[in-house]
Amino acid sequence: MNIITLTTDFGTREGYVGAMKGKIISLLKDKDQDRDVKIVDISHEIEPFNIYHGAYVLLTSIPHFPPSVHIAVVDPTVGSERNSIVIKTERGDYLVGPDNGLFTYVVKKLGVKEIFRIDEEKYSPSSTFHGRDIYAVVGAEILKEGKYEGERLRDFVKLDEVKKKIIHIDRFGNIITNIKKDEISFTHGDEIKIKIIHKQKNKIRTEKIIKCKFVKSYFEGKDDLICLVNSEGFLEISKFMDNASKLLNVNYLDEIEIMGKEK
Amino acid sequence: MNIITLTTDFGTREGYVGAMKGKIISLLKDKDQDRDVKIVDISHEIEPFNIYHGAYVLLTSIPHFPPSVHIAVVDPTVGSERNSIVIKTERGDYLVGPDNGLFTYVVKKLGVKEIFRIDEEKYSPSSTFHGRDIYAVVGAEILKEGKYEGERLRDFVKLDEVKKKIIHIDRFGNIITNIKKDEISFTHGDEIKIKIIHKQKNKIRTEKIIKCKFVKSYFEGKDDLICLVNSEGFLEISKFMDNASKLLNVNYLDEIEIMGKEK
Amino acid sequence: MNIITLTTDFGTREGYVGAMKGKIISLLKDKDQDRDVKIVDISHEIEPFNIYHGAYVLLTSIPHFPPSVHIAVVDPTVGSERNSIVIKTERGDYLVGPDNGLFTYVVKKLGVKEIFRIDEEKYSPSSTFHGRDIYAVVGAEILKEGKYEGERLRDFVKLDEVKKKIIHIDRFGNIITNIKKDEISFTHGDEIKIKIIHKQKNKIRTEKIIKCKFVKSYFEGKDDLICLVNSEGFLEISKFMDNASKLLNVNYLDEIEIMGKEK
Repeated sequence: MNIITLTTDFGTREGYVGAMKGKIISLLKDKDQDRDVKIVDISHEIEPFNIYHGAYVLLTSIPHFPPSVHIAVVDPTVGSERNSIVIKTERGDYLVGPDNGLFTYVVKKLGVKEIFRIDEEKYSPSSTFHGRDIYAVVGAEILKEGKYEGERLRDFVKLDEVKKKIIHIDRFGNIITNIKKDEISFTHGDEIKIKIIHKQKNKIRTEKIIKCKFVKSYFEGKDDLICLVNSEGFLEISKFMDNASKLLNVNYLDEIEIMGKEK
Repeated sequence: MNIITLTTDFGTREGYVGAMKGKIISLLKDKDQDRDVKIVDISHEIEPFNIYHGAYVLLTSIPHFPPSVHIAVVDPTVGSERNSIVIKTERGDYLVGPDNGLFTYVVKKLGVKEIFRIDEEKYSPSSTFHGRDIYAVVGAEILKEGKYEGERLRDFVKLDEVKKKIIHIDRFGNIITNIKKDEISFTHGDEIKIKIIHKQKNKIRTEKIIKCKFVKSYFEGKDDLICLVNSEGFLEISKFMDNASKLLNVNYLDEIEIMGKEK
Repeated sequence: MNIITLTTDFGTREGYVGAMKGKIISLLKDKDQDRDVKIVDISHEIEPFNIYHGAYVLLTSIPHFPPSVHIAVVDPTVGSERNSIVIKTERGDYLVGPDNGLFTYVVKKLGVKEIFRIDEEKYSPSSTFHGRDIYAVVGAEILKEGKYEGERLRDFVKLDEVKKKIIHIDRFGNIITNIKKDEISFTHGDEIKIKIIHKQKNKIRTEKIIKCKFVKSYFEGKDDLICLVNSEGFLEISKFMDNASKLLNVNYLDEIEIMGKEK
């Protein structure tokens, strides 16, 4: 294992990511492993504090790597009581980060073998930058030793998956829902009615009903809204060369209800 | 050859780029080539669907690498009838991507040796993500084998270069035209008149005439618009520490006409 | 030494960074050193021309690397009379870039051993892109030779550090000042009064006085402005899951005056 990937909401206009990379390389230097290790950027543009966004990006990228060390940091409550964890997947990945739901989707796909609680105190971290002080160090240690040892946990924090909702809006404005391929049975060309529900904090509830054509490729929908099963197996609402999320004015966690197809 | 570069309009807030990197590393793992391979990010911030932007970025970066595998994905019609191609340059690069004009400029500079059509069906791709399902795989295969074999093509799609126009606007707002160094004959300090023509879809045509000083370095134009031959040999319109494209309210593909110098 | 880092204000929507990477790899190819070298992106999203921003990012990242070659390009006056320099730090880093203050903070932390002026003419650079034509080449040469030889300088340009001010605003809107840990003596929970002074070019001076709670972690300030000593030892003004700089409408170089704590 010589790969360590980074997924954060740190952006790339800061020194945060550089600090993590420097730390990892420094720690592998002693064993002369730094020549072999590959530090691979997955994303540093996770929306600040948006755990759903991070969870979706991990799902769509990690399974394509060979078993590797994956550090993920989207951590609104850094410095609080939340745990830091290492999850070993069935095929042998090590997922390192805060225990706040970030790993929900990817662990569902890859399976879990062991869960460890990281003893944060051991690393005397600053209270604001666990990515550098804990996760980068733990990641480098796993690469060095080829394993992780620590207090076992029985479970880890997971995002709710029962309620059907918008779990991601991509850079093109495509709306990704947590409705899976096997939960729908439409055929090419079907006109589908979908209800989108937005709940505000003050309990105002806004509903809108949209129609979209069930297709295979983005370019099939030159004039209409389309929906399709995307390359991850999720139902996605899109508009060809346009921004569906802005058109519909929807956002993360808005609820989705499939109302059936137009006859 | 151990380098593979990536240029896409995927952005870095998604898992798309991570998925491509993971795929490439996975495929080279078998032959233990993954330790040597360098995956180099050129850009993932090509404007969505802007083939001109992508073409300019490839021109300005690829020639500086030693002969390498270069994957480029700006692909508005993914899943349609457009071809996928591999172009081998005279010096031995392999350019991998959709056949939509992306490689126009860089191939003009580096010369073409062979053109191949990629047999997309062979890769049973998803209909939305050829970057991961086809191009990453083809790129990894070329690194593995040191060559590409497939159906030969006689030609590939090229962007129009006859009409003089804005082909790129960079992050600083500098306006890059496809007017080459050898098409102009100005000397340092000349005051040049340039007409910029914007054609809207409804056939409204807006013209504006600007004056700019022909200089060598950005900082020479503290108060005026300047133009200079940039490091790629293209005529560029700029304003020192300011955003020329916003000042002039111009955009990609606006036409450019050099009206001569002020006497 | 096999690491070369890049920090620029070039953004990643251009070919600039790719050109630098290509150049470095090409130059190391001859000696077959390209397989070992690691080109590490620190940041390409330094605010255009913002030397303070660049200086802070270098400070927060470079010390975490083992001694390496670090190229930094934030260079508003490229092509003018400003020098290009190589600074060797006490522990053996080589800092390569324009002599405009960029290296102030990191050199203060790491110490200076030698300073060299780069003979720019030797590289017959384009007048607009020294990052590719000079700094990438110098960086590669240092990796190749393991040292740098050139005209010695006695000193280099430094940013002013006497006046207390905002030196960085991070992606989350956290406001970082150049007030150090040892210049303040507050205890957890103290309510602190801070004056922020904004001077406009027309000499209009705007003052605002804010109160903020002195804490250890971001999440402690659910409702109030907070301030804390950040992981670099600087006083930082923040708001939990909110953008403090937008809330307060402050910017780089606004002056900061600690007025003491509320009794």
